[in-house]
Amino acid sequence: MDHSILQATRELLDEVGYRALTVDQVAARAGVGKAAIYRRHGSKAEMVFVATMHEQQLPPWAGTGSLHGDLLALVRAFHARMAAPAARRLAPALIGELAVNPELNARFRDTFLAAEQAAFADIIDQAVARGELAGPVDPAMAHLLLLGSLASALYILDLPVDDAMVTDLAAAAAAGMTALADLHRGDPDGSARPR
Amino acid sequence: MDHSILQATRELLDEVGYRALTVDQVAARAGVGKAAIYRRHGSKAEMVFVATMHEQQLPPWAGTGSLHGDLLALVRAFHARMAAPAARRLAPALIGELAVNPELNARFRDTFLAAEQAAFADIIDQAVARGELAGPVDPAMAHLLLLGSLASALYILDLPVDDAMVTDLAAAAAAGMTALADLHRGDPDGSARPR
Repeated sequence: MDHSILQATRELLDEVGYRALTVDQVAARAGVGKAAIYRRHGSKAEMVFVATMHEQQLPPWAGTGSLHGDLLALVRAFHARMAAPAARRLAPALIGELAVNPELNARFRDTFLAAEQAAFADIIDQAVARGELAGPVDPAMAHLLLLGSLASALYILDLPVDDAMVTDLAAAAAAGMTALADLHRGDPDGSARPR
Repeated sequence: MDHSILQATRELLDEVGYRALTVDQVAARAGVGKAAIYRRHGSKAEMVFVATMHEQQLPPWAGTGSLHGDLLALVRAFHARMAAPAARRLAPALIGELAVNPELNARFRDTFLAAEQAAFADIIDQAVARGELAGPVDPAMAHLLLLGSLASALYILDLPVDDAMVTDLAAAAAAGMTALADLHRGDPDGSARPR
């Protein structure tokens, strides 16, 4: 039943879009009762979030042998996912929903955001071990530099983003992380502030 | 009348928030007819955007004598504005609205975004003239690195952002812009791609 609900949600998102989508439509398409949906998902927003983003695996990232290479592989994989037409259509509405729906926000932080920041922590650890970075960098800051700027470009400013731009973002993030590692050399967590 | 409409909008935003705000309330508070409001602003979203953001002047930025100093002054001024409680409450709903309201989007691009990118172009020109940058950098990319990452932190991820984090963002953006200037040395517009 889980699968049929999420599949119906994805189909209807493509057909009618986020705003027009209703839980009733999903229940009818999936052949289940509305109560069954609400037992699994607290709201339409959470159902859509799970159907489109939460189920996806993180792309492979590390292991290219350089900080710049790892960041480029990571941002290319995220760009392919984040710039998909369905994601671009959905994200601005989800951003509005995240701000007013604490349960959706908690799920977003604990699953999606935590996994993304952990990927940056892995890349940073490997770069420190290779001696490419003078010390640790705050993974949340690295995440913002690379994927935060990309999210703003796609979902707030609605800019066209091509591979040349993604490549520049990776080069700039690598240089920025290198500068922060130098700046905070000796700080145990790679940042000047208490955490 | 323009002033009274915008003043009433700002007061009601503080009192009831964006979602609950109606054009009827603003008309009543300002003592004008609804038609007068709709002649000036195409929608509630546009009226709110003009009342909260469009009227504001850009903060002073350049002239500190270094790329890093200029970026730090700029991002501190924007942070003070962007992290204000009213802006944090309003922005996620406006992001959702921008994606579905082409008129609001056009106004946002032509006024707000264009002025922000022009500020970066000025800072870049001065850094090139001082010899701090090897050549021009795409102002849109510099804007994304510094303010795009900040906007994601504040409005998408809802992270706490303090002055230490803003200072790190300025240092990382300066290093990233320096790397991109080296990478694209010889390109006339500071980027590898056609514009």
